[in-house]
Amino acid sequence: MSTQQHLRELDLADPLAALRDEFALPEGVIYLDGNSLGARPRAALARATQMIEQEWGEGLIRSWNTAQWSTLSARLGDKLAPLIGADSGEVVITDTTTVNLFKILAAGLRIQAERAPQRKIILSELHNFPADLYVIEGLADLLQQGYELRLIERPQDLPGLLDDQVALVLLTHVNYKSGHMYDMTATTGLIHQHGALALWDLAHSAGAVPVQLKAAKADYAIGCTYKYLNGGPGSPAFVWVSPDLCDQVWQPLSGWWGHARQFAMEPHYAPASGITRYLCGTQPLVSLGMVESGLDIFAKTSMQALRNKSLALTDLFIELVEARCKDHPLTLITPRDHAQRGSHVSFEHPEGYAVVQALIARGVIGDYREPRIMRFGFTPLYTSFQDVGAAVQALVEVLDSQQWREPQFQTRHSVT
Amino acid sequence: MSTQQHLRELDLADPLAALRDEFALPEGVIYLDGNSLGARPRAALARATQMIEQEWGEGLIRSWNTAQWSTLSARLGDKLAPLIGADSGEVVITDTTTVNLFKILAAGLRIQAERAPQRKIILSELHNFPADLYVIEGLADLLQQGYELRLIERPQDLPGLLDDQVALVLLTHVNYKSGHMYDMTATTGLIHQHGALALWDLAHSAGAVPVQLKAAKADYAIGCTYKYLNGGPGSPAFVWVSPDLCDQVWQPLSGWWGHARQFAMEPHYAPASGITRYLCGTQPLVSLGMVESGLDIFAKTSMQALRNKSLALTDLFIELVEARCKDHPLTLITPRDHAQRGSHVSFEHPEGYAVVQALIARGVIGDYREPRIMRFGFTPLYTSFQDVGAAVQALVEVLDSQQWREPQFQTRHSVT
Repeated sequence: MSTQQHLRELDLADPLAALRDEFALPEGVIYLDGNSLGARPRAALARATQMIEQEWGEGLIRSWNTAQWSTLSARLGDKLAPLIGADSGEVVITDTTTVNLFKILAAGLRIQAERAPQRKIILSELHNFPADLYVIEGLADLLQQGYELRLIERPQDLPGLLDDQVALVLLTHVNYKSGHMYDMTATTGLIHQHGALALWDLAHSAGAVPVQLKAAKADYAIGCTYKYLNGGPGSPAFVWVSPDLCDQVWQPLSGWWGHARQFAMEPHYAPASGITRYLCGTQPLVSLGMVESGLDIFAKTSMQALRNKSLALTDLFIELVEARCKDHPLTLITPRDHAQRGSHVSFEHPEGYAVVQALIARGVIGDYREPRIMRFGFTPLYTSFQDVGAAVQALVEVLDSQQWREPQFQTRHSVT
Repeated sequence: MSTQQHLRELDLADPLAALRDEFALPEGVIYLDGNSLGARPRAALARATQMIEQEWGEGLIRSWNTAQWSTLSARLGDKLAPLIGADSGEVVITDTTTVNLFKILAAGLRIQAERAPQRKIILSELHNFPADLYVIEGLADLLQQGYELRLIERPQDLPGLLDDQVALVLLTHVNYKSGHMYDMTATTGLIHQHGALALWDLAHSAGAVPVQLKAAKADYAIGCTYKYLNGGPGSPAFVWVSPDLCDQVWQPLSGWWGHARQFAMEPHYAPASGITRYLCGTQPLVSLGMVESGLDIFAKTSMQALRNKSLALTDLFIELVEARCKDHPLTLITPRDHAQRGSHVSFEHPEGYAVVQALIARGVIGDYREPRIMRFGFTPLYTSFQDVGAAVQALVEVLDSQQWREPQFQTRHSVT
């Protein structure tokens, strides 16, 4: 049986294959960058149109009541909750990932300041998405209370860096470059053993891999909705806080959406109980509303079914690339161990940037991350096994022909 | 000449009358709540559709380059700048008003901590939009450095409350309830005389009244784009910082959009120079993009022309209400003095809530604010003189017939 025939049979046997029809994908494109910006659900345009024409245009200010705008963040949070192992009423969709991270860092430090004031270290990862580090720097600099960022260089170094000075540990569950995934339960347990709180960035996890925040006894989590959740470019982010901690302190971005009596317009802040105290100001409602179109697709399947297909796709991609590109200087940096792999695969190549540009020119869209990393995201909702085959074929052709040497592929753009 | 004929002639002579066609207003509605949520520009739906279908759906991740998403906040800020007396490169549209307020409060305190560390008072207004007070409380509580909120009860009390303990003064230029407007130049001068920094909330000013931030020597300003600027429900807010202060400190919500080298993904934060250091995380691009449709309409007129019509509309409304409702317990709380009036008019009525509900049932949409305040916004881009006449006629009928006593108008909803 030819590889092509084998891939066709895998697609025929794929129980998720029909979900691809939920998405409007461009012609002639194999999209392997849903880990950066998810594809467009067909329903999103109708949802936005309804919000713009009816809720905004016709309803005008009345839509605060008739369309229940002020509870939309919580209602969408309830739809997201099962994907990350949280319960209804524990998640809100609001603001940006970075702003939400600031909230949970501040709240976590406040809790630790009461429990263990000597703990002044925030532990995170050198190879984390850098905004996570920037916001730690920003908060530590703001507080002027001696907080310091300590960096983990490799996941296996974590145990040796945990001590009685560590207040918080912020880890990205699935690393944005390597695709390495932590064992959330074991790692949270280790962090707790050392008296620190465990904060998880789920940017590359939510909708990509099964997450069980409550079973893992995590303390805080944030993440974004525009990657695997397909909420639209820059769609608002999410925040979850363990119910054990949520009402102990308030977060400092205390706006009117987080007030216990939102419309009473009282002069003093009184935080709502539960996760709505993590809301702040009025949300961008059209961008927020489209998040629902992405989440509704997940209700047609399960995270376990998605995970099974994701592993099959990434296994296949690694296998085909290694078999067909063995004469080229490619280094797999994503773990082979399923338990440590997210839903994207990264290879290093000395000319990775140019290779990715040449692939994009052929309609195979992955992306590039410094240094030398070619990143390919596999989104089981809309990626087929034949897509994987075609992407590898394009990679083989670009490498074998050295097409990446062409000058137009060498010019640097600011690809995210 | 009948009042009706007079109003018709005012509309015929109105040089801005044609701008109403830029908006999609619902049939049978007189909309006097553009000070809470602006009406829908006709162009907004096409702009959103283009962003959803083309930029997101077809362009996918490539749109970061081809649609220049990462500079959209600054490009729209440049379009807004002339409306508030700022220069190109000094304004960004990003995040929410509350989040932006947190940024400028933190930055202003940091500047004062270096200049005059004994100054621990943040002065603001008891009758400010309460989120402004909540975020001051949130920041003061976070910092644990002895900062305190001191409240001004009436604008005329400001001079007596300024002393050498005051670090920052946060004033809302046009009060959201009374419609009172400060003299920005004189007030900023007074604040500076006392060694404090002047922070202006322009939520009810931007697009409503001429603002000259630089001429007034203001230090910081924030505001929203979904009221008079017609950006859409919850559209992202704006922030301006005096160029004299901007690069002196960084704001603590230090995300990747505010980094000097946004796409370099460096592990340490280095703020961009200029106002882009006030950016934080990825913005909700569809909601952000629609802001442009609102701003483009302002390019067809001038803030002075809008101000002339706004004063004529509010004068007319006050005159007609006072003439025709004199047997009812209405109290004007908006200043008669043009120099102290924004673009909305508020009357107190003991049953204000029910009266507003009865008006809305007749298609005259104003809103209600505790306690007893009926608020009517006049947006010269789409409000006609005949609208004012029809609104007053509806008010007369509701009051004369005591229709507000009907039970359905007494039930409280959470109107914003």
